[in-house]
Amino acid sequence: MPYGEIDQLAINTIRTLAVDATAKANSGHPGAPMGMAPVSHVLFNKFMKFNPKNPNWVNRDRFVLSNGHGCMLQYALLHLFGYAVSLDDLKAFRQLDSITPGHPEAHDTPGIEVTTGPLGQGFSNAVGLAIAQAHTAAVFNKPGYNLVDNYTYTFFGDGCAMEGVASEAASTAGHLKLGNLIAIYDDNHISIDGDTKCAFTEDVTKRFESYGWHVVWVKDGDHDLEGIEAAIKEAQSVKDKPSMIRLTTTIGFGSKLQGTGGVHGNPLKADDIQHVKKLFGFDPEKTFVVPQEVYDLYGKKAAEGAALEAEWNQLFEKYGSEHKELHADLARRLAGKLPEGWEKKLPTYKPTDPAIASRKLSESVLEAIHDAVPELLSGSADLTGSNNTRWKNAVDFQPPELGIGEWSGRYLRYGVREHAMAAIMNGIAAYGTLIPAGGTFLNFVSYAAGAVRLSSLSHQRVIYVATHDSIGLGEDGPTHQPIETLAHFRALPNMMVWRPADGNETSAAYYMALTSKDTPSILALTRQNLPQLEGSTIEKAIKGGYVAYEDKDAAITLVSTGSEVGICLEAVKELAEKHNIKARVVSMPCVEVFDAQSKDYRLSVIPDGIPALSVEVMSTLGWEKYSHEQFGLNRFGASGPYKEVYKKFEFTPEGISKRAIATIDFYKDVKPLRSPLNRAFTQLI
Amino acid sequence: MPYGEIDQLAINTIRTLAVDATAKANSGHPGAPMGMAPVSHVLFNKFMKFNPKNPNWVNRDRFVLSNGHGCMLQYALLHLFGYAVSLDDLKAFRQLDSITPGHPEAHDTPGIEVTTGPLGQGFSNAVGLAIAQAHTAAVFNKPGYNLVDNYTYTFFGDGCAMEGVASEAASTAGHLKLGNLIAIYDDNHISIDGDTKCAFTEDVTKRFESYGWHVVWVKDGDHDLEGIEAAIKEAQSVKDKPSMIRLTTTIGFGSKLQGTGGVHGNPLKADDIQHVKKLFGFDPEKTFVVPQEVYDLYGKKAAEGAALEAEWNQLFEKYGSEHKELHADLARRLAGKLPEGWEKKLPTYKPTDPAIASRKLSESVLEAIHDAVPELLSGSADLTGSNNTRWKNAVDFQPPELGIGEWSGRYLRYGVREHAMAAIMNGIAAYGTLIPAGGTFLNFVSYAAGAVRLSSLSHQRVIYVATHDSIGLGEDGPTHQPIETLAHFRALPNMMVWRPADGNETSAAYYMALTSKDTPSILALTRQNLPQLEGSTIEKAIKGGYVAYEDKDAAITLVSTGSEVGICLEAVKELAEKHNIKARVVSMPCVEVFDAQSKDYRLSVIPDGIPALSVEVMSTLGWEKYSHEQFGLNRFGASGPYKEVYKKFEFTPEGISKRAIATIDFYKDVKPLRSPLNRAFTQLI
Repeated sequence: MPYGEIDQLAINTIRTLAVDATAKANSGHPGAPMGMAPVSHVLFNKFMKFNPKNPNWVNRDRFVLSNGHGCMLQYALLHLFGYAVSLDDLKAFRQLDSITPGHPEAHDTPGIEVTTGPLGQGFSNAVGLAIAQAHTAAVFNKPGYNLVDNYTYTFFGDGCAMEGVASEAASTAGHLKLGNLIAIYDDNHISIDGDTKCAFTEDVTKRFESYGWHVVWVKDGDHDLEGIEAAIKEAQSVKDKPSMIRLTTTIGFGSKLQGTGGVHGNPLKADDIQHVKKLFGFDPEKTFVVPQEVYDLYGKKAAEGAALEAEWNQLFEKYGSEHKELHADLARRLAGKLPEGWEKKLPTYKPTDPAIASRKLSESVLEAIHDAVPELLSGSADLTGSNNTRWKNAVDFQPPELGIGEWSGRYLRYGVREHAMAAIMNGIAAYGTLIPAGGTFLNFVSYAAGAVRLSSLSHQRVIYVATHDSIGLGEDGPTHQPIETLAHFRALPNMMVWRPADGNETSAAYYMALTSKDTPSILALTRQNLPQLEGSTIEKAIKGGYVAYEDKDAAITLVSTGSEVGICLEAVKELAEKHNIKARVVSMPCVEVFDAQSKDYRLSVIPDGIPALSVEVMSTLGWEKYSHEQFGLNRFGASGPYKEVYKKFEFTPEGISKRAIATIDFYKDVKPLRSPLNRAFTQLI
Repeated sequence: MPYGEIDQLAINTIRTLAVDATAKANSGHPGAPMGMAPVSHVLFNKFMKFNPKNPNWVNRDRFVLSNGHGCMLQYALLHLFGYAVSLDDLKAFRQLDSITPGHPEAHDTPGIEVTTGPLGQGFSNAVGLAIAQAHTAAVFNKPGYNLVDNYTYTFFGDGCAMEGVASEAASTAGHLKLGNLIAIYDDNHISIDGDTKCAFTEDVTKRFESYGWHVVWVKDGDHDLEGIEAAIKEAQSVKDKPSMIRLTTTIGFGSKLQGTGGVHGNPLKADDIQHVKKLFGFDPEKTFVVPQEVYDLYGKKAAEGAALEAEWNQLFEKYGSEHKELHADLARRLAGKLPEGWEKKLPTYKPTDPAIASRKLSESVLEAIHDAVPELLSGSADLTGSNNTRWKNAVDFQPPELGIGEWSGRYLRYGVREHAMAAIMNGIAAYGTLIPAGGTFLNFVSYAAGAVRLSSLSHQRVIYVATHDSIGLGEDGPTHQPIETLAHFRALPNMMVWRPADGNETSAAYYMALTSKDTPSILALTRQNLPQLEGSTIEKAIKGGYVAYEDKDAAITLVSTGSEVGICLEAVKELAEKHNIKARVVSMPCVEVFDAQSKDYRLSVIPDGIPALSVEVMSTLGWEKYSHEQFGLNRFGASGPYKEVYKKFEFTPEGISKRAIATIDFYKDVKPLRSPLNRAFTQLI
């Protein structure tokens, strides 16, 4: 059916809603919605499969607005198609506590798949969504049961195209031959600094071709609806490559300032709004107008989507009769439940077991649980042998034609692309059927900070396997030795930072990481061997902090994490033998989880009356919350064999004892000596 | 002269030194040095201009080993050419306190230009070095005085090629048409996970061409020395594009495991070492052997370099007679001095001056000082109008043929490429004639964390202009509102994090940023207007923290930064009027600089005897060091008009007063109540 007036009306309705909402908020970005309304109309109305009444239907097509600042485009579409986004919600655009914030947030708004706005992230999330689709299809689809066959569509702009994270993700998607991924590039030649010719003159088409993408160019994205439709059809037909549709558009189409930076990030002026509305045949005096025909048109599409889901539900039910176990597995995953009894597979250790590096302990966990937790998808940013992220019989997730893996494979080789790995994992987690875990050195989780932040903000269960967690990595030296990293991520809301001290604590870290559905985790793991502690159990460690060595007559509490807990336990002996001082030791593998315990429990761990000294071989920043004095490393490390490096910085029983004595002495006259956990008021959360 | 035995001997000497050093350290990467010894020999001996006796000669060619793990290659070259790196230094490879650490560190080793190892950084630094060369040449070269005409060469491997930061930098270099930049890609098909076919199958040649680079392919980088020489000559002849030489090599050339991942990151086994030495005609029983002919050959080259510098010094002296001011300017910059009296240009403010956003105050500083400080090169990652980083009559740094700027321009449009911006700034600073300042939103400095860390570690005077520093940015919402960011960078050693509260403090931040030659700075600046404080002066603020409002009878100290200092001053009135409580206020724009003051001074600011409450509208992590109690935001922010957002989270005079009262009450029974600055022992620095 050729495009006609109703299509243009729908397109202009999207545009005027964006104009009105940004004007009412006196804030926001009208340009991208006005420029991309045509492709949105064609994509959503002709191609996409979705049921606005159930935004969680697993086989819906995924849509990601990577240029998230243009979110009024998406909010308008959600409203018009009948998602639970009202006209009043559009009127509350960018207002406090609305569901239409300044950038799309997955957790807050029905129909928003992932949280975007920080440029390049959404594009990379889309790669993750497409990976999850390909994997889920390979595992669950059976002859006659094409249960999972959705596409992932993403819009991205020049800003996303410039960001390295998107470059990494695009290269990954090309390598993986993700034919289910269709990215539409809003080639409007405008970024905040004005014409892209001032900084961005590369040949984007050629670049995407170099990654192995199929590229189509639609030269008039403002008017050529047929061309857009043909391009999307062509992209769908290319099954062995991701497709990029380069769509040349006019930013702010219809505005007096169209095609300039003036419409990018500022609402239109009053006279321009009048101009736009007249041009589009809308009453210039009215705002937030939706012609009934547009509701009708999109309502029809929504009803088709609901019918598709109903059909799918029937198919899924029938699937249950033929493929009972697979049906149960998928149903369980979609319900957000882990398999019954999986946690019994977690390894436990006795103090007599040998000293083992926690990166190896992590490998043992993966080895032990990977059969029991089939939704776990591991991987590494090209450090597989160092991160120990791959179980022995793992199959790589690869396009089968490469001969080195399968779509159903559960090990992903991300390449040396930490930032894309994190953003892709956010997308994988958002798909709803998988739990991604990805490895790199702790120091290089920082390369991924932009995406790690979004794991937290968008409540994704993503696991960062962060090995080589301190100066204990030794010879690689200061360029690789984290100092600031744990402080950074401890300051990030909704992130669990785990630094286990031994095998039981490593199992506890995985237990919490896997069972915390709305919270990502960073597991900071050692390169060097760690002894199995006397006092550790999984049950204790899942409280985040616990007493690893108790002495009722102790004069000091040593609070420590990871590789330093064992040294603190040696310091207890040193203090007793050489100084006749009694000390107790707290292991604190995860401060965030400890903070969530009852105050009584926490005060039993770090009590009033005696001083506490924290011991962690990196920045002391933040340890004042759990200790009166802090022993750490507020400088860069050193290259050398790790035992020598530890000695240089005095992280030895003697070095700890010396500071413990100074601490006891310093606080001996303070009355009352309160636990640092006792606070004057409660923080806002 | 055709290549002969002596060339092969030099190449094999480099290889065996790398084999011996990694074997002795029992740690390190022999593969890359063995594979890249041929190109190193040709590049260093035939092309590069350098004087090992003066590694700081400004017109030397720059060499950057972006694949820094292969640093034994560079250490071997430095030794053989006569830099102050001895054979004993090579024997101390990766040992504690040696000058041959596990990855190259600019600050520690003569001849190392930049600190590399974190992949993708060196490549991006090289882009910065090339930018600095082009700018410096445009400013100082005059007819007959080609003072600055060096090339920048960089080696990079598959890992660097995969990193987004290098993609961003490569796109930037292509846009800028940097004909002085020659990057040599070690196309050895091996990364840590093994064959690159598992994750990296893009067409790198085509990608670099898409960025606008000239690409040459040398297919036998192991043997074809003539081909390598021809490729470098060709690259030098292309003046309007950066060049990439794709050099196909065999990693670990000569080893039994050559061409495999086995030689990438582990020393060779004993029998393999014997094999390699026999193959290359070296005595298998001897280690660290350098044939005298090799010393002689490279010594001759070094002498030529010394002669070149001597010639240059004469030319520069003559230049002084014809171009006195320029001569003095360049000599001053090379001596690391700022222009006399520049600081007198810094704006100062009175309390009666209007409220102004600190991003605008920063713009006023740049406007005021840019003429006085000609080495200041400003820029932004596509947020010029938001960061306010551009002075009015600034000229863009652009290739003149684009018609939008000049090589001598002092404003760099980095595009939406925060990570490359930071890494490029590290390179610009390392060149020695410029001080780079680059803008983005504070939240997106995190995208650049990998490079920011290296600003600190390698002691580069780089200025991050980080605007939109809190929930005070308002409508853009949680995706853009920093919470963890300041804690992150305060935990980073050798970084000054400034958060000025008004105009005088903004001037103070610039004063310290510009005069701290070995320390980078992040200036966290507001979007919203800030009043000019009663008590502020540049002199006070450059101490990092000072008393902004004193009351000898105060019951509490409010310690605050940036936009919250003004609210604390209002809270003082609220406390006095409604609660009859006296309070004093400390403004703490930079904790790192405050930490460097005398203890007496610091205790005069945050004294014993009364409690202190910190007030900063982001993560409280770390504030325990300066206060007894902390008021902050340990959750994500909200999208809405900023005053409403501040109110929601109670950052109001009332909200502060409430917590101040709770704090006073909580500490009333503690004796002695010490300042948090009083500590039991001193941290290692």
